[in-house]
Amino acid sequence: MLSTIYEPIQEDLVRVEDRLRSACEVDSPQLSKLLDYTLKSGGKRIRPALVLLSGKFYHYDPNYLLPMATAVEVLHTATLVHDDVIDNSLVRRGYPTVNKVWGEDKAILLGDYLLAKSQELVAETQNLRVVRLFAQTFMALSGGELNQAFNPFNLEQTRQQYRQRISAKTASLISLATESGAILSQAPEGSVEALKQYGHNLGIAFQIVDDILDFIGTEEEMGKPTGSDLAQGTLTLPAIFLLERYPEDNPVRRLFQNEDRQKNIGLATELVRNSSIPQECYAVASDYCAKACQNLSLLPDDASRRSLIQLAEYVVKRRK
Amino acid sequence: MLSTIYEPIQEDLVRVEDRLRSACEVDSPQLSKLLDYTLKSGGKRIRPALVLLSGKFYHYDPNYLLPMATAVEVLHTATLVHDDVIDNSLVRRGYPTVNKVWGEDKAILLGDYLLAKSQELVAETQNLRVVRLFAQTFMALSGGELNQAFNPFNLEQTRQQYRQRISAKTASLISLATESGAILSQAPEGSVEALKQYGHNLGIAFQIVDDILDFIGTEEEMGKPTGSDLAQGTLTLPAIFLLERYPEDNPVRRLFQNEDRQKNIGLATELVRNSSIPQECYAVASDYCAKACQNLSLLPDDASRRSLIQLAEYVVKRRK
Repeated sequence: MLSTIYEPIQEDLVRVEDRLRSACEVDSPQLSKLLDYTLKSGGKRIRPALVLLSGKFYHYDPNYLLPMATAVEVLHTATLVHDDVIDNSLVRRGYPTVNKVWGEDKAILLGDYLLAKSQELVAETQNLRVVRLFAQTFMALSGGELNQAFNPFNLEQTRQQYRQRISAKTASLISLATESGAILSQAPEGSVEALKQYGHNLGIAFQIVDDILDFIGTEEEMGKPTGSDLAQGTLTLPAIFLLERYPEDNPVRRLFQNEDRQKNIGLATELVRNSSIPQECYAVASDYCAKACQNLSLLPDDASRRSLIQLAEYVVKRRK
Repeated sequence: MLSTIYEPIQEDLVRVEDRLRSACEVDSPQLSKLLDYTLKSGGKRIRPALVLLSGKFYHYDPNYLLPMATAVEVLHTATLVHDDVIDNSLVRRGYPTVNKVWGEDKAILLGDYLLAKSQELVAETQNLRVVRLFAQTFMALSGGELNQAFNPFNLEQTRQQYRQRISAKTASLISLATESGAILSQAPEGSVEALKQYGHNLGIAFQIVDDILDFIGTEEEMGKPTGSDLAQGTLTLPAIFLLERYPEDNPVRRLFQNEDRQKNIGLATELVRNSSIPQECYAVASDYCAKACQNLSLLPDDASRRSLIQLAEYVVKRRK
């Protein structure tokens, strides 16, 4: 499915993999091993694909787009490595996390190294606007996560706060991918804005689906335990819907009041699975995907635009 | 003492403080509080001073040098925040660390935010060479620390490995300060290289003195417990000298073999204090400072050069 969507940029995605592999070749064998473990672990490469597809509409220059596509994947990896330390996660994509295998100290330093590496790659774009955008995106991302860290187990979170949070946490990096692809291909400002908005809406939809799958997916599909958001005290859209539906008493409320956590996570998951909440959340995600596709209307109607539209459909349909 | 050395750049150092204060003004009150706590905590500001002094020899342009001077201090702060998590340090500059007060998760995210902020500030220099140098320096720094994290409690460390480690850990950031100041003031390449080497040698001396003070300083002067390097399994120059002097049996060896840690840290500290090892280490540091001063010989003989020479003298004389 993804391979069809990636078709217009297939060859350059292989070159991104080559660059990720090169990034693992460093003097220190220990650092090299950690880079191998995290950069070659086979994510879906959605962010690099978005940079390349967004760069296809005007002056596609691989000299600038390839380092940028690699940079967003390296930055994304850095945030995952640090997130796993923060959440004390033990499994990611079906494998033990860096903090689990090598310890928190190495995971923090590896994340830092990856952040620096991503910055070095961005400098290769020779574009100061993109360098600045990259830095500001990561500021929004880490600042947003910091806010979240100050508000765990807080039942007063509204849908709006949820949107702000996933906007900072996920949509920011996805719109960085699309916006930078546009800038680096010298797109006119209207198109830069359109691709940025596409990325934003796609990113929101992507995270909502992630949050649904944390309730209805299986551990095997997800490559990590389900119910992890509730376990970490993070209220996502399905949980917010559940609280709205049963405002008086429900397992999420009891869980957040620190009563018998494991049991209440199980109960909340069951309640959500057996309700119409997943469909309602999917409807919200689909709305964002529809908006994302509308954002593309002023762009040339070519293979890249079709891929971006298909990607928006994929994001809602995916099971992992 | 420092105020005299900083005299040629006094006004612009005040502007760096203003910029650090501005960096603390963000929407989120919680993030703002953490930024206040770390950026206004009154370090010696040696790194920003070095950027500004190194920028004084040719075309001094505060539009570029001020953001750079601020960036190196913010990057330095980010590394301290993450180091304190990694080392589980509870006190820094006489105050509880961020991880102690707010927890490890917030400290990791704050460090990430500061890294991103430093990158945004560097982009203000409009100089891609400096952006790249900044990223590569932080790669060397975090990669070097990662190597160290894989080799704690390792008695086979030589003087050469020690020099490599402190070169990556400390000298890299100090030579970034001096080299970037030179580049941003359009210094000729010979002068860029000279200031870079000055920073490198000064940085090595700076860290050796830090490592001596961890043995002979007082907790009050240092603002943190002494003996902390040994406690973390880090072999510094005084400990290496001690191992060379008593190769068969000594408290460092016993400590690294995990015997009665607290007692052996105390014994090792006493042995070093009552030996000629501190003077011998100071002699090594002084040699590096002398080299640093020699590096300056081709630069114009003006107030900035005198300040850089005095700073090299200060680094060896300081007690904290």
